[in-house]
Amino acid sequence: MLEVEIKAHVSDFKPIKTRLSEIGAREKKFEHQVDVYFNAPHKDFAQTDEALRIREIPRDKGSEIILTYKGAKLDDKSKTRREIEVKIDDKENTASILENLGFKAVRTIKKDRIIYIYQDYIITLDKVYDVGNFVEIEKDIKEGENYQEILDKIFEISQDLGIDDGFERRSYLELLELNKKL
Amino acid sequence: MLEVEIKAHVSDFKPIKTRLSEIGAREKKFEHQVDVYFNAPHKDFAQTDEALRIREIPRDKGSEIILTYKGAKLDDKSKTRREIEVKIDDKENTASILENLGFKAVRTIKKDRIIYIYQDYIITLDKVYDVGNFVEIEKDIKEGENYQEILDKIFEISQDLGIDDGFERRSYLELLELNKKL
Repeated sequence: MLEVEIKAHVSDFKPIKTRLSEIGAREKKFEHQVDVYFNAPHKDFAQTDEALRIREIPRDKGSEIILTYKGAKLDDKSKTRREIEVKIDDKENTASILENLGFKAVRTIKKDRIIYIYQDYIITLDKVYDVGNFVEIEKDIKEGENYQEILDKIFEISQDLGIDDGFERRSYLELLELNKKL
Repeated sequence: MLEVEIKAHVSDFKPIKTRLSEIGAREKKFEHQVDVYFNAPHKDFAQTDEALRIREIPRDKGSEIILTYKGAKLDDKSKTRREIEVKIDDKENTASILENLGFKAVRTIKKDRIIYIYQDYIITLDKVYDVGNFVEIEKDIKEGENYQEILDKIFEISQDLGIDDGFERRSYLELLELNKKL
């Protein structure tokens, strides 16, 4: 799967929420997400621009756990990249398998995410702990499909939302690492 | 978790089944299992005696999929080793994540397994395609627990079943590799 996506840093969600309502975007759900990122024993994902993550989303009955691989970004203006996900039934055992294989947990990112649906697109408002507030606009497509038109449409939507600067291609992990170093 | 286990090659399941019935073991279920084994990009599991496997067990409604890591064997008379398992919701995506991380699918093992329960022990009769017929006797315990007594009891059960030779510490994967080379 290809995740066609842009992200922008925003200071305030209020005007974005107003615009989302005006253009007819539908607020779908709120999630608290706890993401543990791993690095590999045989290469440095910070160099290869890959990511391996276990996400936990607390639900009313237990948590949803997702293992995700992300490939290197495909262009220099968006965050578009390969993304592969599986649902798993146990967070600790998955972490333990990865650690036994030589992968190391390097950082945990926590965020509160409000998810909107607009046409075929997913728009999320992310309050990322120790990092800041961000808007992501995304569409998932099959690999091999041309994503340029979709990316153009995504930038149009961002204009519609009043977002014309603050674009950010670095991951929350990279931004958190940067904050920790400052 | 620690998988305390022995395995023996047998020519015929019939006398074993008779003995299982006589000692009061309960036939629990039959499973067809398809196991895909992976090797690592940064070490050779054949050398380190580790294993990484995706198991598919077809069920009436869809398949059960399990990702398993096995550590090196802990002694020289049994197959006792660390085992960590998670259930996953998609076989192809899990294989794709592993392949993107540099792991390579090396071999597929298919078997028909009849699972018996006897006291706290699991006894399985495995018809392994292109390898042969095997009996496994197993108990899963917590790591750190002393497994010697359990292993003694497992060898006692094997005596009870009339199994006193044909013990095999090599994995089905190793045995299949060997057959393919002959």
